[in-house]
Amino acid sequence: MSFARLQEKIDALKNPTVVGLDPDLAHIPAEILEKYFKSHGETLEAASMAVMEFNCGLIDTLCDIVPAVKPQSAYYEALGPYGVMALHKTCEYAKSKGLYVILDGKRNDIGSTAAAYSTAYLGTIKIGEKEYKPFDADALTVNAYLGSDGIKPFIETAVKYDKAVFALVKTSNPSAGELQDKKIGNETLYITVGDLMEEISRDTKDKYGYTCVGAVVGATYPEEAKILRERLKHTFFLVPGYGAQGGSAETAANAFDKNGKGAIVNSSRAIIAAWKKTNGDYKAAARDEAEKMRDELRKAVY
Amino acid sequence: MSFARLQEKIDALKNPTVVGLDPDLAHIPAEILEKYFKSHGETLEAASMAVMEFNCGLIDTLCDIVPAVKPQSAYYEALGPYGVMALHKTCEYAKSKGLYVILDGKRNDIGSTAAAYSTAYLGTIKIGEKEYKPFDADALTVNAYLGSDGIKPFIETAVKYDKAVFALVKTSNPSAGELQDKKIGNETLYITVGDLMEEISRDTKDKYGYTCVGAVVGATYPEEAKILRERLKHTFFLVPGYGAQGGSAETAANAFDKNGKGAIVNSSRAIIAAWKKTNGDYKAAARDEAEKMRDELRKAVY
Repeated sequence: MSFARLQEKIDALKNPTVVGLDPDLAHIPAEILEKYFKSHGETLEAASMAVMEFNCGLIDTLCDIVPAVKPQSAYYEALGPYGVMALHKTCEYAKSKGLYVILDGKRNDIGSTAAAYSTAYLGTIKIGEKEYKPFDADALTVNAYLGSDGIKPFIETAVKYDKAVFALVKTSNPSAGELQDKKIGNETLYITVGDLMEEISRDTKDKYGYTCVGAVVGATYPEEAKILRERLKHTFFLVPGYGAQGGSAETAANAFDKNGKGAIVNSSRAIIAAWKKTNGDYKAAARDEAEKMRDELRKAVY
Repeated sequence: MSFARLQEKIDALKNPTVVGLDPDLAHIPAEILEKYFKSHGETLEAASMAVMEFNCGLIDTLCDIVPAVKPQSAYYEALGPYGVMALHKTCEYAKSKGLYVILDGKRNDIGSTAAAYSTAYLGTIKIGEKEYKPFDADALTVNAYLGSDGIKPFIETAVKYDKAVFALVKTSNPSAGELQDKKIGNETLYITVGDLMEEISRDTKDKYGYTCVGAVVGATYPEEAKILRERLKHTFFLVPGYGAQGGSAETAANAFDKNGKGAIVNSSRAIIAAWKKTNGDYKAAARDEAEKMRDELRKAVY
């Protein structure tokens, strides 16, 4: 079923937005940080508690208007093990509020190591007779440079637990093309990767026709998004690059099919750090910004 | 200085081996697991404590004969936040015993997110007025699919803190060639990646001529290793695929320069799970196997 659950959440809210939870400490209001510095000192533990309060506030204020959140693992790892605990709790809290959780970790490896990553984020692990979900996200971003050996273990886990992955295909950054746009025979590398992902996951289609391997396709490259949307009919797209990186609702719209389905657009800083422009409550500012983005996407996509 | 510290440790022990600390629970002797299940139940916390005891035993028994260890992050992440705490402590303990720590995380992202990963594993983070090292490895494996935007933040951190990264160039797995061997103009993708890594790091050469961006080059592809060794004169190689994956000392030798320098060969399972063949003490079995590998590499490389 993979992406069916996500598409249905999007349809219910008429909003193909995922909010990136990228808790760079610079995005967290000073009063939240200081509260925990007072109780726990200027420590990684205190910073991780501040992240958790910040995220819970965002989730509370956004969960009735957006279908999904995307915690970016790097910002949690930068706070060490306590930060990773906050990542774990963020996934758990977001799911308890009905949100679909896309963990942005861009993980990649082979064989039993790739299987261990898929266990960590999408599966379960047996400890003695008991079974645990180490992080329990709904989807994970992955990197396909190692070829199909690196993706198949994720597919197995995704199929077993009704989860999904998004493989990097055409990323949103300025240097994306240095490797991804290079020609391999008649096609670019990014198309070759996209084709390979659709090929190895073809037996996993859900009721809407999407396989469990989606693709990351940047809103900053609308022509490439159009080509990929035409070509990869069974691939759900995660679209970064909206807002801060320069992508708009109009450019992001190229990632959707003619019925306005099959994609979700990410915005991180523009929403979670919106309070820096308003100087008001961070939750109210985030909600205003998320509503604005939803309305822009509705106009451009539907 | 980047890889100079590593080359000097290798030279001092006449042993270009890095031991992969991949604590799949199946590799840990049952009595260690059961000890913690008794005290802490069949929990992720208990399993993480068992991992820590297992790793400390390996580090104690190997630190006078091998220069480096390579914890594979996936196996720690598969135990959730407690597992990541064990990863943190493993890095710390290995460094306290004089080992060079290569954290195998294959991380990749862009801009401030890549910077957050480099902070996590190679740098420091400021919390209020205090500064912390979230994981404090000596080197980190990274994936270059996003182009130079994805690597430059790691280079900055590596230069600042005398650390290094290894970018995936030609990996050791069977499907490595699906993308990596594809021709781009006259060259393969893996050579294109190798060239790009050497190019963007050229100003970071240490006293032995190595830049702070090394390359992962599988022992399972000796012809490709030979080509890369000829071409990338300023790149230090991390060589996986020895032992369990089918690479030998002879095939791994192609990754070294004519003076027997510029590379380190990884073995994981064959060393840390050697006790499964001997049915004896896991530390003694690991030491025997590591001495055997060292002797084979000495013969083939020096």
